[in-house]
Amino acid sequence: MKMLINVPETVVSDALRGLAAAHPDLTVDVEHQVIVRRDAPVAGKVGLVSGGGSGHEPLHGGFVGPGMLDAACPGAVFTSPVPDQMARAAAAVDSGKGVLFIVKNYTGDVLNFNMAAEMAEDEGIQVASVLVNDDVAVTDSLYTAGRRGTGATLFVEKIAGAAADEGAPLERVEALARRVNESSRSFGVALSACTTPSKGSPTFDLPPGELELGIGIHGEPGRERRAMMTSREIADFAVNAVLEDLEPTGPVLVLVNGMGATPQLELYGFNAEVQRVLGERGVTAARTLVGNYVTSLDMAGCSVTLCQADDELMRLWDAPVQTPGLRWGR
Amino acid sequence: MKMLINVPETVVSDALRGLAAAHPDLTVDVEHQVIVRRDAPVAGKVGLVSGGGSGHEPLHGGFVGPGMLDAACPGAVFTSPVPDQMARAAAAVDSGKGVLFIVKNYTGDVLNFNMAAEMAEDEGIQVASVLVNDDVAVTDSLYTAGRRGTGATLFVEKIAGAAADEGAPLERVEALARRVNESSRSFGVALSACTTPSKGSPTFDLPPGELELGIGIHGEPGRERRAMMTSREIADFAVNAVLEDLEPTGPVLVLVNGMGATPQLELYGFNAEVQRVLGERGVTAARTLVGNYVTSLDMAGCSVTLCQADDELMRLWDAPVQTPGLRWGR
Repeated sequence: MKMLINVPETVVSDALRGLAAAHPDLTVDVEHQVIVRRDAPVAGKVGLVSGGGSGHEPLHGGFVGPGMLDAACPGAVFTSPVPDQMARAAAAVDSGKGVLFIVKNYTGDVLNFNMAAEMAEDEGIQVASVLVNDDVAVTDSLYTAGRRGTGATLFVEKIAGAAADEGAPLERVEALARRVNESSRSFGVALSACTTPSKGSPTFDLPPGELELGIGIHGEPGRERRAMMTSREIADFAVNAVLEDLEPTGPVLVLVNGMGATPQLELYGFNAEVQRVLGERGVTAARTLVGNYVTSLDMAGCSVTLCQADDELMRLWDAPVQTPGLRWGR
Repeated sequence: MKMLINVPETVVSDALRGLAAAHPDLTVDVEHQVIVRRDAPVAGKVGLVSGGGSGHEPLHGGFVGPGMLDAACPGAVFTSPVPDQMARAAAAVDSGKGVLFIVKNYTGDVLNFNMAAEMAEDEGIQVASVLVNDDVAVTDSLYTAGRRGTGATLFVEKIAGAAADEGAPLERVEALARRVNESSRSFGVALSACTTPSKGSPTFDLPPGELELGIGIHGEPGRERRAMMTSREIADFAVNAVLEDLEPTGPVLVLVNGMGATPQLELYGFNAEVQRVLGERGVTAARTLVGNYVTSLDMAGCSVTLCQADDELMRLWDAPVQTPGLRWGR
């Protein structure tokens, strides 16, 4: 598999240098692999830190900036960052109001963020953590005990980020983040496997004419393999899988997410089918975001995330955000 | 090749329905294939209209909104829209101050926009047109007499859009658009060919271990085929090809553009190499944008566009923009 890289060993550090060059409003520590908004720590504000294996860009480094994360720690591709990175990030963003760790539910990430929380607390930083586990496809997987954390991470980071921006205290930002996670469910579908730079060949074998339902974001196998389906059929399957578990009683935020290699033209067409299913099921899409946000390297495919939203979550979702990967103004 | 679609015949109309659902601030006429900002015509403002074959998203429909285009006309995949679409768009956005057509240099687009200009003028609308032809790779191609229009289209649409937003008259918006095009050059590289929905197989054959230098955005062949190169070598080749032709005497705007299927992680790594070459050549990158903006369906690869920028172009580049594909605030 051909890649636009130098050597697998420098993929993450090369990307960090390129990120730094494009975004002077971020401080990128390439050596220690920590991305921090340049004006951190922001006085009086709770600091938000996330991180995880690389290969899901723009998640998380692309979500650092006003209105979202204060710092992100990228690990090697599909590999948890180490506690030292997270503790370093916490120290860089703590203004004295405490730090929230936003952790996707993968065994390595959970362990390392726990350890980092202890390290930060030893330095006198107050730390709270919230676990994201929105993926309804499988209960346990190659990398997880319990549900995996996928698309809902974007909702958690955006909404908690907006609350922190408004000056909410740590307990409140933590509670909101937890509420967003509990209100969110995701389901993903792969048309192709992804290829990691170090392996150089697809992470699983997906024959022509077949797709994998219920995949994760690390090329881990899904729930079921089937003969190729239409956009309409895939939307029926994915949205119904989510709604079996969520049963929203009000409007939802919708993320129609590309896994990396699926063209925007196809993602918008898929969104039309997602909206159709929601309409048929009597669910109102209050806001819809379509694009590549929580990716899996060069995987072709998509995921659907729904988050049941009340007025407060909607207001925080609409609040301004200025990051490389997600930005809007008033 | 697997695609997230229903049938090839409805790919564009499905995408337009999905775009409409996600962006209530756009008026999407699915039947006539015209995307217009909802508040058009904006009183006292020159209207900006662009368009072209689908398959390059977010270009052009994703660039409709305050600070950029007033309307876009998507054709079938890699096929020019028809004059009726463009004339309809002109009528929808003209406030009496005239309309600028931004036309990428492909034979079909040029013919059809010319015809549409005559139709609009017959209706009493003042129309000016600017041709974008920034691609230094080839002088003539399958679809073009002269240079192809590629990445510079984004610079032209953004900067002319900002000027129109400020209330500049038609002659001035046109002159600026022309100046941006004349100050811009691009060069693209493919690691894989793209697959159109109707054909269902790659548009050209690119063996493993080879890449194509100087490709266009329709899967048309490039300038030269070589054994696979590193990110560093590709950046040297692409940036030098641009600089052979541009010879900037001041700072440049940089677009490091993904062709659709190349992960953001790789694009940022490639940007590090682009910045290195610019530094070695004594060229200052004043602003850098990295991402999938002018794409070629599911093609893996990238392009580099440089635009020599003075203070005025820089100020207009930095002006707020609110579109699905490009947005920033103050």
